[in-house]
Amino acid sequence: MEENTGPSFVMYSACSVDGFIAREDGSVGWLSEYDPASAGYGEFFDSVDGLVMGAKTYEQVANSGKWTYGNKPCIVLSNQTRKPFRQCVEFFTGRVEEAVDLMREWKLGRVWVVGGASIFTQFHKKRLIDDYIIAIVPIMLGSGIPLIQSCDVEVRLALVSSRALDSGLVLNHYRTA
Amino acid sequence: MEENTGPSFVMYSACSVDGFIAREDGSVGWLSEYDPASAGYGEFFDSVDGLVMGAKTYEQVANSGKWTYGNKPCIVLSNQTRKPFRQCVEFFTGRVEEAVDLMREWKLGRVWVVGGASIFTQFHKKRLIDDYIIAIVPIMLGSGIPLIQSCDVEVRLALVSSRALDSGLVLNHYRTA
Repeated sequence: MEENTGPSFVMYSACSVDGFIAREDGSVGWLSEYDPASAGYGEFFDSVDGLVMGAKTYEQVANSGKWTYGNKPCIVLSNQTRKPFRQCVEFFTGRVEEAVDLMREWKLGRVWVVGGASIFTQFHKKRLIDDYIIAIVPIMLGSGIPLIQSCDVEVRLALVSSRALDSGLVLNHYRTA
Repeated sequence: MEENTGPSFVMYSACSVDGFIAREDGSVGWLSEYDPASAGYGEFFDSVDGLVMGAKTYEQVANSGKWTYGNKPCIVLSNQTRKPFRQCVEFFTGRVEEAVDLMREWKLGRVWVVGGASIFTQFHKKRLIDDYIIAIVPIMLGSGIPLIQSCDVEVRLALVSSRALDSGLVLNHYRTA
């Protein structure tokens, strides 16, 4: 019998108190004073076997010249393939479900869905996200790019843990109920 | 010398993980399973000297026939005056600043800005809100009415306290930094 369990998907993102992951123009300068390490980033990163991200995010990372994701397999969902920055990166032009199949073939147990909002939304809409880990930054932005693009998919969650940090960040970990 | 300190204003609201206070149609059925008492509502209510709300919220409350705000002075910001439901209610057709002046005259120390989003936004845009108390409900709505209507007013906050409840609610209290 074929093993049919897919990888579990984790969204890990910072957002403002009013639910934005970036300003309207995409800038995230308001995040710079927060130390990712304090928000459990290292521990989280160690817990994932691979990554999936959108082409826009990939390009931002590639353009920065810094690849901070080690050698973990990373699928970039894109409309076109191109030469990847690193060997562990694979461009993928198929549908999300096919990308999931690929990650299953690769036997990835836990995959980080790396923002932005577009890929969060694609995975959220298909109810593929198992864990939502959200670091709430103590700021009201007033406007910006929301965590999830408007859609009609409601997902009930259970709170796994909540931790308030000295910096004022509140790190909430939810799992699909 | 005239005393010029105004009342302090508190926003107290539940919202979804993705920052919505209601579904697109205004419904908040997803809140019904949460006991406000467990989210510190009683304590909070005791701490305020008065209320300010919008006409739409007032009408919803009045139509429900239940006034749960006791005899605390309540200003309803509205385009037109009408006979109020209760004696402690005063309709006010002036500008927000004039309403603030009135509350100062009444010597209200701490005033609850009762949602919805429209009045939150009016007070937020004028940087009048001192405390943001937000109960995050463990649900992703996908779409709905945001905490604050889109505006370009960014407000830095300090986390005063954060409490995770057994129900999965996370009650975060922020103060303007």
